[in-house]
Amino acid sequence: MMLRVGVIGTGMIGQDHIRRLTKVLSGVQVTAVTDIDLARAASAAPEGAQVFDTPNALIGSDSVDAVVICSWGPAHEEQLLACIAAGKPVFCEKPLVTSAEAALRVMEAECAFGRRLVQVGFMRRFDADYRRLKAVIDGGTLGLPLMYHSTHRNASVPPGLYTSEMPLNDTLVHDADISRWLLSDEVAGVEVRLPRKSRQGGELRDPHFVLLHMASGALVDVEISVNIAYGYDIRGEVSCETGIAALPNRPATVVTDANGYRQAIPEDWRERFIEAYDQEFREWIVAAVQGTATGPSTWDGYAATLVADAALRAVDSGVFEKITMRDKPALYGLPVSRAA
Amino acid sequence: MMLRVGVIGTGMIGQDHIRRLTKVLSGVQVTAVTDIDLARAASAAPEGAQVFDTPNALIGSDSVDAVVICSWGPAHEEQLLACIAAGKPVFCEKPLVTSAEAALRVMEAECAFGRRLVQVGFMRRFDADYRRLKAVIDGGTLGLPLMYHSTHRNASVPPGLYTSEMPLNDTLVHDADISRWLLSDEVAGVEVRLPRKSRQGGELRDPHFVLLHMASGALVDVEISVNIAYGYDIRGEVSCETGIAALPNRPATVVTDANGYRQAIPEDWRERFIEAYDQEFREWIVAAVQGTATGPSTWDGYAATLVADAALRAVDSGVFEKITMRDKPALYGLPVSRAA
Amino acid sequence: MMLRVGVIGTGMIGQDHIRRLTKVLSGVQVTAVTDIDLARAASAAPEGAQVFDTPNALIGSDSVDAVVICSWGPAHEEQLLACIAAGKPVFCEKPLVTSAEAALRVMEAECAFGRRLVQVGFMRRFDADYRRLKAVIDGGTLGLPLMYHSTHRNASVPPGLYTSEMPLNDTLVHDADISRWLLSDEVAGVEVRLPRKSRQGGELRDPHFVLLHMASGALVDVEISVNIAYGYDIRGEVSCETGIAALPNRPATVVTDANGYRQAIPEDWRERFIEAYDQEFREWIVAAVQGTATGPSTWDGYAATLVADAALRAVDSGVFEKITMRDKPALYGLPVSRAA
Amino acid sequence: MMLRVGVIGTGMIGQDHIRRLTKVLSGVQVTAVTDIDLARAASAAPEGAQVFDTPNALIGSDSVDAVVICSWGPAHEEQLLACIAAGKPVFCEKPLVTSAEAALRVMEAECAFGRRLVQVGFMRRFDADYRRLKAVIDGGTLGLPLMYHSTHRNASVPPGLYTSEMPLNDTLVHDADISRWLLSDEVAGVEVRLPRKSRQGGELRDPHFVLLHMASGALVDVEISVNIAYGYDIRGEVSCETGIAALPNRPATVVTDANGYRQAIPEDWRERFIEAYDQEFREWIVAAVQGTATGPSTWDGYAATLVADAALRAVDSGVFEKITMRDKPALYGLPVSRAA
Repeated sequence: MMLRVGVIGTGMIGQDHIRRLTKVLSGVQVTAVTDIDLARAASAAPEGAQVFDTPNALIGSDSVDAVVICSWGPAHEEQLLACIAAGKPVFCEKPLVTSAEAALRVMEAECAFGRRLVQVGFMRRFDADYRRLKAVIDGGTLGLPLMYHSTHRNASVPPGLYTSEMPLNDTLVHDADISRWLLSDEVAGVEVRLPRKSRQGGELRDPHFVLLHMASGALVDVEISVNIAYGYDIRGEVSCETGIAALPNRPATVVTDANGYRQAIPEDWRERFIEAYDQEFREWIVAAVQGTATGPSTWDGYAATLVADAALRAVDSGVFEKITMRDKPALYGLPVSRAA
Repeated sequence: MMLRVGVIGTGMIGQDHIRRLTKVLSGVQVTAVTDIDLARAASAAPEGAQVFDTPNALIGSDSVDAVVICSWGPAHEEQLLACIAAGKPVFCEKPLVTSAEAALRVMEAECAFGRRLVQVGFMRRFDADYRRLKAVIDGGTLGLPLMYHSTHRNASVPPGLYTSEMPLNDTLVHDADISRWLLSDEVAGVEVRLPRKSRQGGELRDPHFVLLHMASGALVDVEISVNIAYGYDIRGEVSCETGIAALPNRPATVVTDANGYRQAIPEDWRERFIEAYDQEFREWIVAAVQGTATGPSTWDGYAATLVADAALRAVDSGVFEKITMRDKPALYGLPVSRAA
Repeated sequence: MMLRVGVIGTGMIGQDHIRRLTKVLSGVQVTAVTDIDLARAASAAPEGAQVFDTPNALIGSDSVDAVVICSWGPAHEEQLLACIAAGKPVFCEKPLVTSAEAALRVMEAECAFGRRLVQVGFMRRFDADYRRLKAVIDGGTLGLPLMYHSTHRNASVPPGLYTSEMPLNDTLVHDADISRWLLSDEVAGVEVRLPRKSRQGGELRDPHFVLLHMASGALVDVEISVNIAYGYDIRGEVSCETGIAALPNRPATVVTDANGYRQAIPEDWRERFIEAYDQEFREWIVAAVQGTATGPSTWDGYAATLVADAALRAVDSGVFEKITMRDKPALYGLPVSRAA
Repeated sequence: MMLRVGVIGTGMIGQDHIRRLTKVLSGVQVTAVTDIDLARAASAAPEGAQVFDTPNALIGSDSVDAVVICSWGPAHEEQLLACIAAGKPVFCEKPLVTSAEAALRVMEAECAFGRRLVQVGFMRRFDADYRRLKAVIDGGTLGLPLMYHSTHRNASVPPGLYTSEMPLNDTLVHDADISRWLLSDEVAGVEVRLPRKSRQGGELRDPHFVLLHMASGALVDVEISVNIAYGYDIRGEVSCETGIAALPNRPATVVTDANGYRQAIPEDWRERFIEAYDQEFREWIVAAVQGTATGPSTWDGYAATLVADAALRAVDSGVFEKITMRDKPALYGLPVSRAA
């Protein structure tokens, strides 16, 4: 069966997903698009796709089996609720929603529907390096994970457009989600420390150093540097009881020349995670064809929102900001309880 | 347009390509299969595919736009000629054919047809690591390539089934093809040296050390070890005038434990080249939809056959075995002439 | 000129330094030894060396040009003061002394004497890897250092003998000293976080995660794991404004076998730092022959004591513990002021 | 006991060894020097050393316990024979002598004397990386060594002064000696292949690719590139029956910046082997004090001469050049017979 997909939002990321769904992946076709800018929607629409005036019209259309949401964050809640009301599987780019309350409303609707429909766009979980890393940890040969060192370095951000809150509510959510997933854990509290400021970003607050206190007691530290000039460098290292497991270098050609023995660093997130995005949608399609969703859930989007909120509070307070989650609905699996 | 593909030969590799064409790739469907064992063909046929009694019937069918040949080597020539006669694009697993004469006959037919139709299964050319390596060399910043060190290590081969000729006519062809491609060069002659024999393979002649003398004067040395126990380890390093470029470690998790600071080695060629196989077919499909072929050509299959033949002669003679190629038909591009 | 050295304390480390001074290094001879256990002193004394009954007798002897203190910490202050009173250069194993007040008294005496006489045993500063790392940072091509990630992993500690305070007052001092030296900075305050406890050490509190807030604003995080089983693994990575500089893997043979592509990890600090200890004494000898001292100073010993004290307080308080240092005497160089 | 050493030849390398013997190492003093240029000898002589008019006078002096020969190659034979006649241990820089016949004469004299006196300057055997590599191979866990890939890359050679024979009679000898030592084997024959010429060295024949056929059947391939611009890069990899052992990267700081993730390459042999030279003399001193020599022997110098001669013949002949050694005198240990 061919999955017929409607795409809401045809900006840069929406266009890239349309390319992916039409040129790269199998078993799927884009039959519908919409955007607040209908001309942009029309121009992004692949052959045979219908342009809808509104998200609701698209979601309700008989020619749409499943929905991809690439609109801006504040619009997500309403669109997600409409998808759930229509019983249609939906892939939603991060952020899931823009407040914990909104996340809870989506969660309630999905639970009431009784089957998972929502997958959130945390693509790192589909990256082969992270998956191998998780397999090593879950394998248990190194003992329990005690610390996770996460490093998030970005070459540059657009001056002016990128604000000092964004490292915490736009970037940190990836590290938080991958920490929860790698360690099979929840974030119980957040601290933020501000190291000496880099002069690379002008007035921008950069870098950030974040501590995520996990429910198990494991400690996650996150370096976030968004103007480090040299490239997009994502690192992760888990310290376990009897050994260490870490992401490897990216598989770049080993060149030896006047600059030494060296491997190139990815330029940006597109280069680094392109295969992960493909894989993310491959698995979404498999589940959507069966009328459901797997992968990062509404619960995970809710958790990410709580972490971002706590991190922003922690910048101001300078102290530990506790995170309290509601009870985990059975729809999203068992609560974590990584016993020793 | 959806490419309708017929698969000839439904053994292990044929089944894997059927899986790839039906589950992994887009824009393609398997509409026909055949095999000398029709029961096996029937069992391998995906939903909706027709089982043909003979390769010729499959090749001639209106429901087949393009053909994938996974039969055994001696059957390739006839099947390739039938595809060319039918004007249908064809992917042929290596070996293209089993003699230089047969390769020339296929070449003649394809040239008479006037458009490339054949792609040979040298999947390494589609591997991201090799592609990046070639990009560095072609970039020219390291000067001209002078030597290429190619290492081909295999964990084990089936005792009895794998003969002492196979490292040269089954394995070396990959190193020869990738050398020609990486260096944009041809093989002008071959020498083989037999190092101290490994006790891992019983009576089997192993390892082999091969020198490929390229037309440009560049020298390629190839270590072939087929019973090295620890894994499937493919390495390649190009020594240029002012620098070195080499394949990187595979992107395995970096584990530090009682066995040291380490990365796992692939178990076998499936693990190592799975993405390359996917990419190989992606590009084949793009060309086949347009009624032609790109990638490794009949000329490349011809060259590989000559190298394997020369290498087998060189084992017996102990000396340099010259390779003489026919003039290169324009269909296959310009003759190499990598000027200084 | 041959430097004549008296060694106080002939336990394990004292014996190792006697071996170093007699068998490895040039321009030096051990002419005197003493120990609280005189039989042990006699047995450790190299040929031609005199055994003294007391540290004071050894320090005062005409046959002793310079002194090496390897006694236990609480005895250091008196012995250091005696050396300074005698105007003799002295190498003192860490800890310099066991309280900030004692450090101030030694500092006062040395300043009153008017010339540096004391070198403290922070051997990491003499390690070639750390020296190259500092050269890169000081070179300035990567911009200012903003964060330093220091990792201190030890295979195991003796159960019972090693207490939960020791990671902070015995181990952390090395990370603190090397941080001050690498970054040309001072520690302005300390926080300690206790990650999930490892089951490797029974009741022992392990691991520790420490934050050193440097005067410049740079942030240092230190992972201390003392029962990690797999080896002695010292890592360090400096995040600067436009690049990263890190300690390399130790130069172990690259083995590829069934355990992967790998390099061994040092077993313990002796293996890791043996050359650093040699170099430490080489430079001490050069200065001592000239009647003075270079390398880690009384000031550095004082700073280390303050950090250890603050770290122990921070475990209990759970919050930032500020460090206040006295004005830096001119004898120890300019106060740090790493301007942008 | 203090070893009193006379140094013959005070050119660049002689001066460096005088520095080493006086400033770096213990248990040794330079009491005598000579040179064909007596003014140079006088200027190089350390405090307290006597300048002798002739090598023979220096060798015969009562103030000289052992001799270091750094004169030019053609003078070595006579000086070695004089040392042996005087029963004095002697360190001789490579080449031991300049012909196989001369080597045999020195060997005969040393055997007649009845005790080893000669150590040849193959410093790689004292390099920690090579020693660890040998330990892994000798440990036997990887099975027998079947191939050794040796890579010898030099940034540049002085145009005009450095001739096309020198890669074989000056450079290859190091690879040959280290191959014999690593594999506990002898060289039974040599082949030389000339890859495409680098344009870096003008008319100079460069690079060379050499095959050493070892007595055991193991095959050694050597890449020699002497004008590769980027640095001094010495690599070695042993392919064994069930695994691989290789020299690691040099322990340079890992820098990540706009040039990638990288480590610097040594500039030249001084930087690369400085510790090996020190260790070479440390061990020489220990043996010389006891009136004998260990380390690379006259036999090893003889073997190196045979390899260089055979390699030069092989360039002209283009074929395998067999090496025939005399029976190995018992003084130099058992003949190699690395049985399976």
